[in-house]
Amino acid sequence: MLTPKKVEILSLGDELLVGIRVNSHLTYLGGELVRHGLELGRDQELPDDADTIRGAAKEALDRVDLLITTGGLGPTSDDVTVDALASALCRSTRHDPAVEESIRARFARRGLTPTENNLRQCRVIEGAEVLPNPNGTAPGQWIEDGGKVIAVLPGPRGEMQPMFAEQVLPRLIRMGWASERIPFLQIRTTGLGESQVAATLDPLFEPFAGRLRVAYCAHEGIVDVRLAAAGEDALEVGELTSVGERCRSALGSAFAAFGDSPVAAIILRQLRRHGKTLAVAESCTGGLLAARFTAVAGSSKVFNGGIVCYRNDAKTNLLGVPACLIEQHGAVSPECAVAMATGAAEALESDYALSITGFAGPEGGNEPPGTVYIGYHSPIGVWASKIHHAGSREAVRERGVNAALDFMRRKLRKYEMHELLECLRC
Amino acid sequence: MLTPKKVEILSLGDELLVGIRVNSHLTYLGGELVRHGLELGRDQELPDDADTIRGAAKEALDRVDLLITTGGLGPTSDDVTVDALASALCRSTRHDPAVEESIRARFARRGLTPTENNLRQCRVIEGAEVLPNPNGTAPGQWIEDGGKVIAVLPGPRGEMQPMFAEQVLPRLIRMGWASERIPFLQIRTTGLGESQVAATLDPLFEPFAGRLRVAYCAHEGIVDVRLAAAGEDALEVGELTSVGERCRSALGSAFAAFGDSPVAAIILRQLRRHGKTLAVAESCTGGLLAARFTAVAGSSKVFNGGIVCYRNDAKTNLLGVPACLIEQHGAVSPECAVAMATGAAEALESDYALSITGFAGPEGGNEPPGTVYIGYHSPIGVWASKIHHAGSREAVRERGVNAALDFMRRKLRKYEMHELLECLRC
Repeated sequence: MLTPKKVEILSLGDELLVGIRVNSHLTYLGGELVRHGLELGRDQELPDDADTIRGAAKEALDRVDLLITTGGLGPTSDDVTVDALASALCRSTRHDPAVEESIRARFARRGLTPTENNLRQCRVIEGAEVLPNPNGTAPGQWIEDGGKVIAVLPGPRGEMQPMFAEQVLPRLIRMGWASERIPFLQIRTTGLGESQVAATLDPLFEPFAGRLRVAYCAHEGIVDVRLAAAGEDALEVGELTSVGERCRSALGSAFAAFGDSPVAAIILRQLRRHGKTLAVAESCTGGLLAARFTAVAGSSKVFNGGIVCYRNDAKTNLLGVPACLIEQHGAVSPECAVAMATGAAEALESDYALSITGFAGPEGGNEPPGTVYIGYHSPIGVWASKIHHAGSREAVRERGVNAALDFMRRKLRKYEMHELLECLRC
Repeated sequence: MLTPKKVEILSLGDELLVGIRVNSHLTYLGGELVRHGLELGRDQELPDDADTIRGAAKEALDRVDLLITTGGLGPTSDDVTVDALASALCRSTRHDPAVEESIRARFARRGLTPTENNLRQCRVIEGAEVLPNPNGTAPGQWIEDGGKVIAVLPGPRGEMQPMFAEQVLPRLIRMGWASERIPFLQIRTTGLGESQVAATLDPLFEPFAGRLRVAYCAHEGIVDVRLAAAGEDALEVGELTSVGERCRSALGSAFAAFGDSPVAAIILRQLRRHGKTLAVAESCTGGLLAARFTAVAGSSKVFNGGIVCYRNDAKTNLLGVPACLIEQHGAVSPECAVAMATGAAEALESDYALSITGFAGPEGGNEPPGTVYIGYHSPIGVWASKIHHAGSREAVRERGVNAALDFMRRKLRKYEMHELLECLRC
């Protein structure tokens, strides 16, 4: 593998600096670059100010092979990217008639005529190649300058991402700057903290120092580990696969999957393979658990539905949880969690059911806020589990959903499906 | 108002550059800074590399009054922030015995002894004031250097945010660099695109050019407008309030609220004021609509629950949607949407109900993917509404939920509650 080309990004737009928009472009581009063997050395969020952008671009061009900019190509006077970059490159701008034609055609399709502002978007940096934008008005630009490349991309996600994937990346691959695909592996773990996962896996990575780039990311009970071949003597596919296998055994039941499959998708896949169905019932997570399952395309083959029962009488009327059970044990109790799961399985005629009941906060009840019970109903029995997480309402709900999914994943893993089927046959 | 102090952020950590973690610190800090009259001029995401961090810190210190760093204070060898900043400031580091004591105490409470690595976190830049970290081991640091300030904050959100709010911001206010609160207003609009909102409001802002900072942020049917007093002759509270009022009238029914109240919270507040209750039923959004209502603390006073009915027989069994209605009109139809809403109101004994049925994609049915019907049941009648959005499964679901919430908000606004009550009395 060649020495990786150095890349930086300029993310342009006032809205990135005033807390109103998350820079999701960086997440997308960072992930794509690492998967194709390029090294992102820095990202900068800059305001819509031509001097600032010009200065930052000049400095970045001293450091990098490839500079990517996103945003600031719109029709308003705030959109100064083209002028600022032209000035940083000591080039002029020109009016591109082909771009004008495509903008006019785009407007005409909606029965409109572009304003003078819209036609500002026809300005192209001298010597730049236009990157057509089938999803919007502002074209991208590809500029080669003294052995360096500047890729100028529009800000809206639905325009930027396809332009990068379909026009920028293929050019970089043809130039030999990016690889079609480098050895890359993501491992999803559940139920451990980041430091526990790192303590388990870091010793396995030691022999490959300098040949492997490792990143950990923890989110409410899930830790993702991203392994990418890196450096001049980068790991090859076979080696990475065997590292992955060693990680899997070291992690034991905390290993959820290779890749970034949601845990909900792992569960649905396993149930679908055996023709089984699933239902959920939830109180404090109020629909988030169902939303995780239904976020998976094709989930309707397995997922029958869910019941969000916030009020106790809804638990009784819709799920058949006996009122006296709630009175005796409380709605936040292992007994109620199990009764909710069984009730959901019955109401939605499903083989399996998962339930959550708890206090998301800020208020508690017979238990402190942050207490969550998980109930699980399967053809071979019922279980309950308790977790407690001291965090915001939002964090408790996220953590509760992740814990419930992890609980079910582990149960399905432990009582492997074929054992279950044996068991049912007896 | 004084000339605002210039601020930059260095967001440190490899994981920010490989697409594995979104930089949510920037969103939090950007929002806080603008609310307190500070101007964030730039953020940079940098890898855990001491040379890069040192160079970027030196350059940033030439530009700014206040430099904030987040991350890289952990116990591992990747965590190079303290050394890199010390080197940028030409200062040495020292071992702080008070920090060591607090780390040892923290470990002892869990029956553990800190390793040598953990004790690396006791190193403090010469002359720095230690910012205690009650939520983790790594302390923050506050450094004054030639009239400039460097605030060094830990990476985990639960440690960084309270340290900024409770220790950094109060110091900045005492120094007169930040205001207790500057004139600030957020307006939430629904149902219009960003360019429509901008076209409506920009003329109102023109007279205040240079005295007001405006940012727009669009997200799946919601557009937020953030107005902050800015500049030496910044807008005063009274002026901003009157600008806000003019925006409200110009926006008409697209005005949802001042502030960043979720639309679900606006609806719940209004129903609660009148002692009314709410239920939901949803198919393609699979729990997301219920999750929006239950995300609001105290929602259980109004929100009775929800039913996620993915399968048609669940719609019939749990919601009482006649099987022949589904057969005749399809499950994705205005008729089915209304029947689901009415069924949810009955099953959950609620005054109001909102329903969603549609094809989130990638597959469609009797309608193309992206088609969503909203059903609404209220004491004075039922309605249905259709939307279509060509986007990813995730975007269609988000857009569908936002459209349903907006539909109900507008209905409640149109038939103001007192009219409704009049009407019910007749």
